[in-house]
This record gives sequence, structure tokens and C-alpha cells, in this order.
Amino acid sequence: MGRAIYDPHPAGQGISVREISRLTQTVSLEDAGLWMYDLITELYPICRSMTGDGVRRTLEIIGRANPLQVHEVPSGTSVFDWTVPKEWNIRDAFIKDSRGKKIVDWAHSNLHVVGYSVPVRRVMSLAELKKHLFSLPGRPDWIPYRTSYFKEDWGFCLSHEQLTGLEEGSYEVCIDSSLHDGHMTYGELLLKGESSDEVLISTHVCHPSLCNDNLSGIAMAVQLANLLRPLHLRYSYRFLFIPATLGSIAWLSMNRERAVRVKHGLVLAGVGDPGKTTYKKSRRGDAEIDRAACHVLERSREAFEIFDFVPYGYDERQYCSPGFNLPVGVLARTPHGKYPEYHTSADNLSLVQPTFLANSLFKCLSMLNVLENNAFCTSKNPQCEPQLGRRGIFRSFSERVGNPDAEMALLWVLNYSDGDHSLLDIAERSGLTFDAVRHAADVLLDQDLLSERG
Amino acid sequence: MGRAIYDPHPAGQGISVREISRLTQTVSLEDAGLWMYDLITELYPICRSMTGDGVRRTLEIIGRANPLQVHEVPSGTSVFDWTVPKEWNIRDAFIKDSRGKKIVDWAHSNLHVVGYSVPVRRVMSLAELKKHLFSLPGRPDWIPYRTSYFKEDWGFCLSHEQLTGLEEGSYEVCIDSSLHDGHMTYGELLLKGESSDEVLISTHVCHPSLCNDNLSGIAMAVQLANLLRPLHLRYSYRFLFIPATLGSIAWLSMNRERAVRVKHGLVLAGVGDPGKTTYKKSRRGDAEIDRAACHVLERSREAFEIFDFVPYGYDERQYCSPGFNLPVGVLARTPHGKYPEYHTSADNLSLVQPTFLANSLFKCLSMLNVLENNAFCTSKNPQCEPQLGRRGIFRSFSERVGNPDAEMALLWVLNYSDGDHSLLDIAERSGLTFDAVRHAADVLLDQDLLSERG
Amino acid sequence: MGRAIYDPHPAGQGISVREISRLTQTVSLEDAGLWMYDLITELYPICRSMTGDGVRRTLEIIGRANPLQVHEVPSGTSVFDWTVPKEWNIRDAFIKDSRGKKIVDWAHSNLHVVGYSVPVRRVMSLAELKKHLFSLPGRPDWIPYRTSYFKEDWGFCLSHEQLTGLEEGSYEVCIDSSLHDGHMTYGELLLKGESSDEVLISTHVCHPSLCNDNLSGIAMAVQLANLLRPLHLRYSYRFLFIPATLGSIAWLSMNRERAVRVKHGLVLAGVGDPGKTTYKKSRRGDAEIDRAACHVLERSREAFEIFDFVPYGYDERQYCSPGFNLPVGVLARTPHGKYPEYHTSADNLSLVQPTFLANSLFKCLSMLNVLENNAFCTSKNPQCEPQLGRRGIFRSFSERVGNPDAEMALLWVLNYSDGDHSLLDIAERSGLTFDAVRHAADVLLDQDLLSERG
Repeated sequence: MGRAIYDPHPAGQGISVREISRLTQTVSLEDAGLWMYDLITELYPICRSMTGDGVRRTLEIIGRANPLQVHEVPSGTSVFDWTVPKEWNIRDAFIKDSRGKKIVDWAHSNLHVVGYSVPVRRVMSLAELKKHLFSLPGRPDWIPYRTSYFKEDWGFCLSHEQLTGLEEGSYEVCIDSSLHDGHMTYGELLLKGESSDEVLISTHVCHPSLCNDNLSGIAMAVQLANLLRPLHLRYSYRFLFIPATLGSIAWLSMNRERAVRVKHGLVLAGVGDPGKTTYKKSRRGDAEIDRAACHVLERSREAFEIFDFVPYGYDERQYCSPGFNLPVGVLARTPHGKYPEYHTSADNLSLVQPTFLANSLFKCLSMLNVLENNAFCTSKNPQCEPQLGRRGIFRSFSERVGNPDAEMALLWVLNYSDGDHSLLDIAERSGLTFDAVRHAADVLLDQDLLSERG
Repeated sequence: MGRAIYDPHPAGQGISVREISRLTQTVSLEDAGLWMYDLITELYPICRSMTGDGVRRTLEIIGRANPLQVHEVPSGTSVFDWTVPKEWNIRDAFIKDSRGKKIVDWAHSNLHVVGYSVPVRRVMSLAELKKHLFSLPGRPDWIPYRTSYFKEDWGFCLSHEQLTGLEEGSYEVCIDSSLHDGHMTYGELLLKGESSDEVLISTHVCHPSLCNDNLSGIAMAVQLANLLRPLHLRYSYRFLFIPATLGSIAWLSMNRERAVRVKHGLVLAGVGDPGKTTYKKSRRGDAEIDRAACHVLERSREAFEIFDFVPYGYDERQYCSPGFNLPVGVLARTPHGKYPEYHTSADNLSLVQPTFLANSLFKCLSMLNVLENNAFCTSKNPQCEPQLGRRGIFRSFSERVGNPDAEMALLWVLNYSDGDHSLLDIAERSGLTFDAVRHAADVLLDQDLLSERG
Repeated sequence: MGRAIYDPHPAGQGISVREISRLTQTVSLEDAGLWMYDLITELYPICRSMTGDGVRRTLEIIGRANPLQVHEVPSGTSVFDWTVPKEWNIRDAFIKDSRGKKIVDWAHSNLHVVGYSVPVRRVMSLAELKKHLFSLPGRPDWIPYRTSYFKEDWGFCLSHEQLTGLEEGSYEVCIDSSLHDGHMTYGELLLKGESSDEVLISTHVCHPSLCNDNLSGIAMAVQLANLLRPLHLRYSYRFLFIPATLGSIAWLSMNRERAVRVKHGLVLAGVGDPGKTTYKKSRRGDAEIDRAACHVLERSREAFEIFDFVPYGYDERQYCSPGFNLPVGVLARTPHGKYPEYHTSADNLSLVQPTFLANSLFKCLSMLNVLENNAFCTSKNPQCEPQLGRRGIFRSFSERVGNPDAEMALLWVLNYSDGDHSLLDIAERSGLTFDAVRHAADVLLDQDLLSERG
């Protein structure tokens, strides 16, 4: 990218490019992908739900490398229009046939039990049992994922093959669960940067053994924290590991002042499947995170898709509610509900793969790189071009063959650094990559031809 | 549209959906189409012109069901840059050949006489006569329609077959017309609504035996008045039955204060032919009527075409002159001049059909439905989503299969009801129909989750 | 264009159309093309460079018909970030082989010597000589064009065939040049119009025997001055004949107050090759010159291309630097660097042709015609249409067959002359040509139906 022509001295005049830019060049994507996949593998068996010990155990594992702040919000707490529900835990669950054989066993898959099922221990006929059984006729060997958060009920999910194989007779049903006043648990991690302005990284932790939705988002957020923690950062980064919907509502309800510091944000969800990368814009539609994300995906030479904001999806629904309207977008691969494995037992360790996780991570780092390094610069020679040739940063005109990007980037940055165009604006307008534009700005800052807004 | 899930009580808190919305669901389009066609059939034989008894007779028939105010503007009255012309009437007209045989007879078709022909009773050679004869060589069996409003002259229109069949000889020519000081007549009807803000429905009544242009527009305006009169309406509706150009100029000239009350308007013309529905935008281009019309046509799943404003056409030329710039568009099917039958004897009772009239009426009602029911609402819970599930208006998340429009509409309305987005804005942005969005707003108003701007 | 219907009297009320509009109708393009080609032929042999007698001789020839102001800027003068270099002149240059035969001779082509070569007179081996030889392997029979403005060096350019045919042995090299304190020369011509607001026409004069780049631009600027000088003009026209880059920098540096008077501008360069006409927008992107140029090209029924501003190219780089941001675009045919002959001996008298020069001139005149005749008008009858028929400028409605442009133009001008829309706006919006709209405005001004902003 032209560094052969000129490389600014580290001790140059300007604000040098921020450390995150080195990450995208130096991180081993192969290692990072394997690390995230291993974390997913470790978290996979845990039975998570909106509340309960599964979330606590998950946060413990996440917190091994990162000093997580773990919050416990008591049942009954009002959070805006909602109330924190009772805490739910489960120890065992099964259905036995009349011969005493366990034909459905929670120990084999925690998807077998409808989330928030009340305790039950009864013998009943098949007809009665069937009112509490859920399957997917179109995917006869998959177990669906189902919850009953706001209505006290119980149920079992099983494959359609199992369901249709059930014979008439009496069945013993056991759900050894508890539903009582307790807490809703979530984790929070703040990496302090130069500024108290924050980048919010939010990911939901309430799903049981489902890999893409959302162990992939959890693993990527943890990996991101690992990578960013050692760096000198421009922004402070706030990571939220929360139960979906109620978790973000609770955090917003208890952090109204902090919410205004969120200058950029990403919800991470479903980032490990083979689909192309997608980005869903914030409600604002033209927030800097939206433009940074579009820039990165458009320059990626890979398939991608950008979606406008719609008021359903994950926790961006809450961050982007009109009373907050935070600049928070969603980084995902195939959107939720758009892949057949979604919310079924097929969202397992085969669906997500280290390379896809690593690819998503790289794009996320590239987006954060734009945020960290974007700036408004002002040319110190706004009247006519300065003579770049005598400074050794531009070949003489007639020697030039073609238009190397690095030299073009110098001209673009000089001409558009009028205080009204950010480096991202210049990258968008010129067709150059953000890195090429940022590098040109660094060369010009080093030559004292540019100033960067403080 | 989700009414199975929830139907707000009629006595709910909010402003309930206005009565017009029921029309689009309950009106019998078959009956309405036949009624309009029968009215066209009755009006067809009458010889109308810019002035005279043909317009008076037409207004009498229109006024049978609707108490029309009939205005008589004296010849010589100045209306802006124009002067109301003399009144023209005709009793008889013919051309007889040398054997005394009527070869052209006004009694057979009032198109035979050029409108505003001065009286004539003479015998003349074929050569002299031919200077006053008009035909359509490309459509040899059709009679053209022609007028000479602002130049005193006379003439006959006839089929080209007739014209070319004329033999040398002398011809007796009679036009028993009168052109003297009198009046220009037009009709006006006001349906009062809650507000003194008006919707203008304008249609021209100056064409003789031409069905699509514009008995179709007349019949649709009358039918519309019949349907709206019994309703409790938000807007007041002003219907104008006027001679083209000079009628709208005269009304605007004499109603300058009233004109500013026109918040939305439609010129109805050529609404009965088999062509696709078209809408020509007002000069403003983004008036609410323009957006309502586009919304209805875009959601219609039928072919349609939208045109930008151009300063020629029908009476919108006057309403949209820069000194008024009223938000008045044109609802038509094939635009004037774009179908071969236009301004010929082929624009007859075969060209227009009840089903096309009914289809146009339905689209017009749908557009008015948007105007009547559009509103700016404000969410009472702007911070995070309110809990819809506990109010029984939303199924729990995991039960949801797919994204039923009714539930999506609730989320769209809640998220975008920030005081800056109207329900029509939300319909446009969400891709939902206006009715789905309005219904969602009613549900939320009923639940006291929304307020509607008074 | 409707003049058959109505032609305003020369002594009409309004501001009559300006004289330039007659040029586009009366100039003999054939003669103009030949005249420009002949001038190119005369200027072709002269050895120009950034400084020196070649430019002086060129300005003398240009100045024969136009009283050019010739400026001499001393070497060492600071112009913004740059310094005017030493003056370079050359009397002779050659390479002789060991038998004393001139194998490269500057007298045959002044491209043979790298511009700004320092004097040299030595005998050397082929190996040493080759370090100073430049050719085009891909175009083995063309001589490249090369300079070394800001680095003291010397060199020869020759065809690749010549280069590869050189045999081992010693060569006598002579460059009889001088590089010493002197001046940089440029020419300036001002045609005064009604207003002190200026149109800038800038063209570079620093290239040796290269026809399209930029004898074509020079010839067109001279022809333009010839054509405009006798006219009564609205704007003052400033022509600059300058060495590229440093010439515009010097002029801007010494004319900062004058620069603000530049309301529109064009850089002329490469206007004689067979490629389609192209226009590069000013940095502003929506300046009146940008819109005028787009209008002319879009209505031309010929292939064309419009480019957004980019900060490399010709002297627009300096005019459009952010501290000036002047509304200056570039009129060219194939853009620089995009045709194979660019900066080679093949950019000769065969590449440019009189018809292409004439075609470019016509488009330039049409663009200037828009600038000279554009205006904001206001209808004196903004409420409803005035009655055009009684003024004899509009046929009665029913006589009309089709929609002749002239009558449509009257309606467009009347409806949009609300003080907010210029005639160019109306031309763009209506799809009519600027001339049709301007003519309609003149008819209406003559009828006292319109007023033109002073």
C-alpha cells in the first residue's frame, strides 16, 4: 500500500495511527478461530436460560481471562415496562414409558425441556402427554428449542421421529425444576480507553445448547475483549453478556446516564455459520458504525448483505427504541430465523466452524479499526497543492506510470481535509480503503502538512 | 390482518379508526360499478359544452341525489386573466345534399357540430363546405370531437368515410345555434367533516357525448359523494363539477380564501377505460395525497403508473399554478391523449366498463382512507419496548412461527411513533399496508401505549 | 423550435436573449475546425516546456489576433508552497554512434530530449548511455514524452526499435541546453462583459510537440476568444495560457482577489481526439457550470461521459483546492492517460482532427450559452394560467395535434417561474432543451407575462 515509498517515523508530529490497526495485520486468524471454537465447545453442554445457574456458570468461564463484573438483579425488580421474573433452575427431567424406560432424557440434550417449565412429576396417558410435546414435522430428526417465559407451563421438545414412535400407554413425566424468587444474572466488562465515550459490544447468553445462536456471539465478544485489553484504545469498550430482551432492558433501565456515552455499538449474534456476513444498520441508518460497517463489507471482496433497521431481531430493539435511539447495529452471518438449523438441535458444533468465526472476527476488528482511527483533518496548505515531490513522498509527474493508490491517497486527503470530511468520508468518496486513506493522513501529519482535530 | 389476535374495543381510549375504512371493506364494487355505468348511460346523449343548457341538464341529474349548489357566472365576468365567454346553445344542425337528404345530422351525434359554432344557414358548394369539415383519415369510421371556443367560426365533424363519399354539388348547411350573453354554469357540493380543512374532488362537465372523458369522472365523483355523505368524516369534502380550464379558473378566482383550506385534492378524469390506473402527482410532488396515492397503487398488486407533475393536462394546471400550488393530483386510467379513442366518437359506452369504474373507485376510496386515518402518534413507552405479551396482544417469542404482519405492525408503530413519523411514513418504511399499521395503532391506543396528536 | 408560431420583437420588454446564442446557430463549424487545426499545425514544431522561449514563441503566435498580456515570473519566486524553477532552453541535442552518425537527433523530434535535461557533452559506453534512455517496449515505434522538472538530470527518449538496435560501442552525447535563472512565462487575456463576474478558461501551454495534449486545448481557447471578443457579453471572460500546475499555482498566488470573481470556469485539454466528449465536474459537483455542462451533453444525442471530481488531472487540481474551491470543471474528449497515444510521439497531427475540434468547440459554446442566458424569472400571473390563445402565442386547445415543444415550453416557464427555479432548472425538469426554455421565456417577457431578475 505504498509503504515502500514512504513510512512516517513513529515519532512524527501528528497523532499516529492507533494500535488497533496493527491487530488486523498481526492477529492469527487461524488461532483466534480455534480459540473461539474451543470456548464454544466448552460452553455448549451448559443449560442456560433467562435466569439461573447456567448463566452464572457461563459467566464464570467467560470471566477466567477477563475480570467480569457479574450483576444479580432480584426477581420482581421493575425495569421500564417489565418485571424481572422468577429464577428458574433445573436438575433433571425425563419421560419414562410404561416399562420404566427413559424415552426422553434431559441429560442427553437440554433442549428436551421447554425453558421455564414448572416442576411436574406425574403419570399420564399419551393423549394428555401429547399436549405438552413439541416437534418439527418438517425436520423429523431435529429437536426444537422452546421456552415459556411469561406463562407458567411445562413441556418437552423431541424429534418428530420420537414423537410419532410413541405408543399408547401411560407415561411417567418428571421435570425436577424450580421457579422461585431469585435473580437475573448478567456480566459486564469495561475496557477503559482515552475517552469516556464508549463502544458497546452486546451479546446474549440465555440460550442453552445452541452454537450459532448464540455461543458464537459470546465467543467472539470474549475473544475481542482478549485482543483489545492490552491495547491503548481511543474509546472505552463496554461488553455486555446478557439474557436477550430483558437483559438489555434491565441494563438500560439501570444505566440511563451511561447509555448516552455509547457513541457506537454492535450486537454480536450468529457469527459462526457458513452464510455470508450481514450487517443490520442502527435505527439512525447513517451512524458512524453503520458507515464503518458498510465500508468494511463493501471493500471485503466477499459476499455480504446490508439491512436497514427493522424493529425486531435481538437486543438492538431495545438500544434502538426511540427513547434511546443508540447507534447500535448488528453483526451476524445468516440472520436469525433465516437458516433451517435456527432454534433447533441442529444448531450444534457442526454448524459453526473456526474459519467462519475468524472471518467474522476480522470484519469486526476492521470496523472497530475505522472507528478508532477515523478523524477530521485539516490541510495546512489549503490553497493549491503543496509540493509533495520535494518532500520525497511523491514521484515526479512524468515518472509516474499508472496511478498508485498511495500517491492518489495523498491527493485525496489533502484536497478533502477541509474540516468537513472525515477520513472515512474520504475513503468512501475516493473508492480507496480506509487504511490507505489513514496511512496517507499519517504521512501528511508527519510532514506537518495536515492537522488532526484533537 | 391479525384481528383474530386482538380487536380493540369500540369504546377504547384512542381516536378510533375513521368510518371511511369500513367503506373499502363493505362497499359492493359490483353494484357501484353498475350504478356509475347507468349514470354514464343517462348522461351520454346530452350535448354539453363550456356553457349552456347541456351542462345545466347534467347538473340537474347529478343533483337528484346530492343537493348541488349550482352557480351561474355571467358572460363577460373577469376571472384572473380570462373572461367568461358568451353562452352557447344549439337546437339543431344538419347538412343536406342537393337532393334534400340529411347526410350529416346533429340528432345522430352531437359530436357532428364543432362546439361553439356560430349559427349558419346557407347553401354552398362542396369546395366551400369542405373548409368547415373535419375528419380523422387514420380512423375513417370515427367522428372527431372539436371546439372553437375563442374564435367565432363554425364547422362539422364527420367520419372520413362520409367525407370522402361526398359528391360534387351544392349543400344546404344549417346550424341552429345561439351565442349570446348568458352564463357559465357549474355545480358545487360540500360534505362537512370534523375539520374545515378540505379535500377537493374536481371533475370537468363540458364534454358532449364522450364517455371516458369525462362522464366516467363525473359518475365517479357522484358515486363518491353518495358513499361519503352518510359518514362521519375527518375532512370536509368539496366536489366541483366544472367546465374544464375556465371552470377551475373561475372557482379559484372567486374562492381565494377557500382555496387555502384545500389540504388534499384529486382531479378525476378518464377513470373508466381498460388501461391501468395512473396517478399524476401534484406540483409539490411529496404532498400527502401524492404519498397516499403512491402507497395505494404500489400495494395494489395491479399494474399502475405514477407521473411527475407537468404543467399540462386537466384542471390541475390551475390548482397547481404557482400562485396556488395546491396539493392536487390526478387519478385516471390511461392518460388523456394516450388512447386512440380520446376525443372521438369511439369514446363511447363500449370503451368504459363497470368493472374499470369500480376498480378506480376502490383505489380512490383507499387513497381517501389513508388521508382520513393518517396520524402522528407518540409512544408512551419510548424507552425499550413495552411488554406486549402480558397485555395479550403478542404471542410469546418462542411460540412465534414466522412473523405475522399484525405483530410486526405493533413493533413498527411503537418504534417509529416518535412524533416525527406519521402512520403513512411507517407503512412506507415497513412495507406493511396502511391498514395494518393503522390497526396496530388502534390496538396500541386502546392499550394506552400510544397517544395520537389531537 | 416554434418560431413559426411567434417570434418576439427585438424591441420587446424583457431582457433579450444574449448574443452568444446566435453563435451556436451561425458559426461555421467546418471553418472553425480547420482554423484550429491550422493553428495546431503551426504550433506543433515548437519545443515548449514549463519555461523558456518555446512558450514565449507560442504566446506570440496566440497573441497575433488577441492582445495577450504576457507575464514573466522570475525564477526563485515563491508561489504558495512552490518555487518558480530555473528557466530551461535548448538549442540542439543528439547522440552520435562511433562512426559519427547522428542516431538520435532533437531536430527530428523535440520529444527526444527529456524536458529540463541539464547540458551534457560526453562520450560514453552503451551501458552508461542506457541509464539515460527511455522507450516504450509495448509501443516499439513511438517515442515517449518525459521530463525531469524537479531533479537535475538528463536523458533521451527514443523508440524501442531504436533502443534495441543500438550496438555496443562508444557514443557521443550532446545536449546543448541551458538551465539558469530566468522566468516562467504565461499569457492572459480578459474580455470584459457587463459584469465583473468572470468565466475562467484555462489551458496549459507547457507541452512540446504533442497535439491533443495540449495544442488542441490551446487552439480551442484561442478560437473561443476570437468568437467571443466581438460580442456583448454578460460575463467577463479570462483566458489563461499557462504551464500546467505551476502556472495555475502562480496565477492563483498572485491573483487571490481576482479568483473570487470566478463564477464559472473550464479547463480545456485534449479536445481534438476521436473519443467521446467528457466533462469532469468541479469539486462542488453542483456548480452552475457542472449543471450546464451536463445539460448540454445529455441533450446532445451523442455519446458522452460525466466524471465526478477527483483530485488529480490538470489545473483544476489547483482551482479546486479546498482553499479556493472554484467552480471549475474540465472539458475534454478521452481523459488524459486513457488513450494509448497520450504523452508519446503518436499524439501528433494524425490523432487530432478538425471535426473533433469543431465538435468540442460547439459543446463549449453551448455550455457558455447556458451560462450567459440562464436567469431566474417570475410569472406576473402566478394564479392560474394566463390566456395565451388571445395573445396569439398558443393555438386553441382542440386544434392542437400532439404537444409541440414550443407551446409546452411556455407552460413550463409560466408554471415554474416562481423565483426559485432558474431557466436551467426548468429545462432539466421539463426535459426540454435550454434554448427552447429560453425562447419561451423571451416570448413571455415580450408579452409582459414574466419578469427577469435584474
